[in-house]
Amino acid sequence: MKNTINNKPHRRYNILTGEWVLVSPHRTKRPWQGKKDQKSELQKETYDASCYLCPTNERASGDVNPDYKGTYAFTNDFAALLPDVESETYDNGLLKAETEMGICKVVCFSPNHALTLPLMEVEEITNVVKLWKQEYKELGGNPAINHVQIFENKGAIMGCSNPHPHGQIWSQSSIPQEVLKKQQHQKEYWDTNKRSLLQDYLKQELELKERILVENEHFVALIPYWAVWPYEAMIVPRKHYQDISQLNETEEIAFASIIKKLTIMFDNLFETSFPYSSGIHQRPTDGEAHEEWHFHMSFYPPLLRSAEVKKFMVGYEMFANPQRDITAESAAENLRKLSEIHYSEQ
Amino acid sequence: MKNTINNKPHRRYNILTGEWVLVSPHRTKRPWQGKKDQKSELQKETYDASCYLCPTNERASGDVNPDYKGTYAFTNDFAALLPDVESETYDNGLLKAETEMGICKVVCFSPNHALTLPLMEVEEITNVVKLWKQEYKELGGNPAINHVQIFENKGAIMGCSNPHPHGQIWSQSSIPQEVLKKQQHQKEYWDTNKRSLLQDYLKQELELKERILVENEHFVALIPYWAVWPYEAMIVPRKHYQDISQLNETEEIAFASIIKKLTIMFDNLFETSFPYSSGIHQRPTDGEAHEEWHFHMSFYPPLLRSAEVKKFMVGYEMFANPQRDITAESAAENLRKLSEIHYSEQ
Ligand SMILES: O=P(O)(O)O[C@H]1O[C@H](CO)[C@@H](O)[C@H](O)[C@H]1O
Ligand SMILES: O=P(O)(O)O[C@H]1O[C@H](CO)[C@@H](O)[C@H](O)[C@H]1O
Repeated sequence: MKNTINNKPHRRYNILTGEWVLVSPHRTKRPWQGKKDQKSELQKETYDASCYLCPTNERASGDVNPDYKGTYAFTNDFAALLPDVESETYDNGLLKAETEMGICKVVCFSPNHALTLPLMEVEEITNVVKLWKQEYKELGGNPAINHVQIFENKGAIMGCSNPHPHGQIWSQSSIPQEVLKKQQHQKEYWDTNKRSLLQDYLKQELELKERILVENEHFVALIPYWAVWPYEAMIVPRKHYQDISQLNETEEIAFASIIKKLTIMFDNLFETSFPYSSGIHQRPTDGEAHEEWHFHMSFYPPLLRSAEVKKFMVGYEMFANPQRDITAESAAENLRKLSEIHYSEQ
Repeated sequence: MKNTINNKPHRRYNILTGEWVLVSPHRTKRPWQGKKDQKSELQKETYDASCYLCPTNERASGDVNPDYKGTYAFTNDFAALLPDVESETYDNGLLKAETEMGICKVVCFSPNHALTLPLMEVEEITNVVKLWKQEYKELGGNPAINHVQIFENKGAIMGCSNPHPHGQIWSQSSIPQEVLKKQQHQKEYWDTNKRSLLQDYLKQELELKERILVENEHFVALIPYWAVWPYEAMIVPRKHYQDISQLNETEEIAFASIIKKLTIMFDNLFETSFPYSSGIHQRPTDGEAHEEWHFHMSFYPPLLRSAEVKKFMVGYEMFANPQRDITAESAAENLRKLSEIHYSEQ
């Protein structure tokens, strides 16, 4: 089927959330007089005495980090969710609330303060994947925890208060709304077709090729057709796995390897330590089988034009609809043509 | 009904969108080591030769602004939506898109480069309200335009590329998803109760008082129970009006006056030109009666702790659920106790 609408203002449908994104491909040429952020530089010091994530340093809670050599996870000292909250509801006319229990953890990817995922060895990233698996199983195994959200905020522009390589896990009793949206659409498709929505989508993308970024035997990284953020990307396993705990040793390495390749592309695009929020969406831990779920990892990077100019999701986007200027196809093209070697090592 | 859950981690329900917000009231004390933005200062020059919105200046398109004395609206030179787009759909397996037509306008609030809404006279703001009404009617009168989104991005931190007091209007053929969500929940309530959801909500808030910011004969400004942004606020007309075109002359002035009072509160909070995105949600212009709609104007300001530290909607918020630290009640209290006179005039 010939696609003739890619150069016109159009809306694209997100099969996972049921939402639309407005695409304005003609608009990239507008001049930018607005805010510029500081270029995000790579860290140089492998240890920072004032960093609360470096080994042997003291944290705000008074706890001292062990002299860890690989990964290290601990309960967030300023957790948004707390484990001991009695269940209580408030239902007063049009006001409705309920208590929420949960456990928030911080996950250090490496003792080396200067690293980031694209600069880590595949073996080191594999250890991060192993830790994610373990935390997903442990936290999710708690009968009060029905959802485990693994994510990373990278870069000051993404609200990350510390450059030390780390991510977070917020696990909780209710299932968050973004997860519910994706669950609903995957379930509708599964119930109708008895096939995975994302596996079918992957098949189509692999035939069309124009949005594929990089692939290996077990995983594919691509810019989804409905991407909202300029360089939004998604890592999808070829197998219909519901969650990361199903990955075997070889697949763990393949996952680590594609994370490294994708994040190197990101860093190389504007020769900066590319900021993003990433997150893994997978089967809730509510005890249901959730055959419909096909786990995937998404990256939402804000940069649009350069290391200093980001896309602002404001005004129209907040009140009406997400909107993007460059198409998913040209974003994929921009990323695909970059070197596979990190710019700092070229 | 006694409310005992406000000091515990909890979720609140948004009656307009059907979504939830996670509230972590215990978390405000965490130290901030992250990004600080520049404090947003008031402008001093009433005319800026390099500003493309000041009277008599040339714009990027080559057009020259008239020597306007009050408000001034023109078609956006870098419009995200274009009027002449043939209708076309793309439907290829799991890829689905459709063209979108629309008209984007820029609305200058004043010829004076140094002003902002809180610094303008009520009569001047009333003229902005009159212009919004006129544009809503004119654009909405176009049979191809089914929705008119009026909004303002204020401040560099909100992606606003020019401090000249102005807003935007994006009007288009389809109804954006944020609007559809609110429409659905208002309609369900209307169909069941034959009463306006927001009018009933307003009644309850006026009894409880704790989230009310300021009121006059025709409008109430409050922090909604389900607020997501730290100082998110909402202006609601007491009458069940579907859109701003129904306002009479007295009500226009009352609307202008409450906008001024609310934005003065905002500026006074951190003694800064308070950044926000604001928008008016009202009846779509698709020719339906939409009796369920109760128009309102919302403000989404990002600042949390000071003029420099904002709330980042990243990671968990993007992948799971919006989350806030201070409660709507304490935000309302912080705003309510401020002087009614703008800090620059005290
Ligand atoms: O149109 P402007 O002011 O250049 O652009 C700003 O507002 C638009 C509408 O909210 C957003 O899409 C842009 O990301 C933002 O930078
Ligand atoms: O927990 P941190 O890193 O201090 O905080 C950051 O991530 C959180 C989870 O995405 C957000 O709620 C905060 O707004 C952000 O600043």
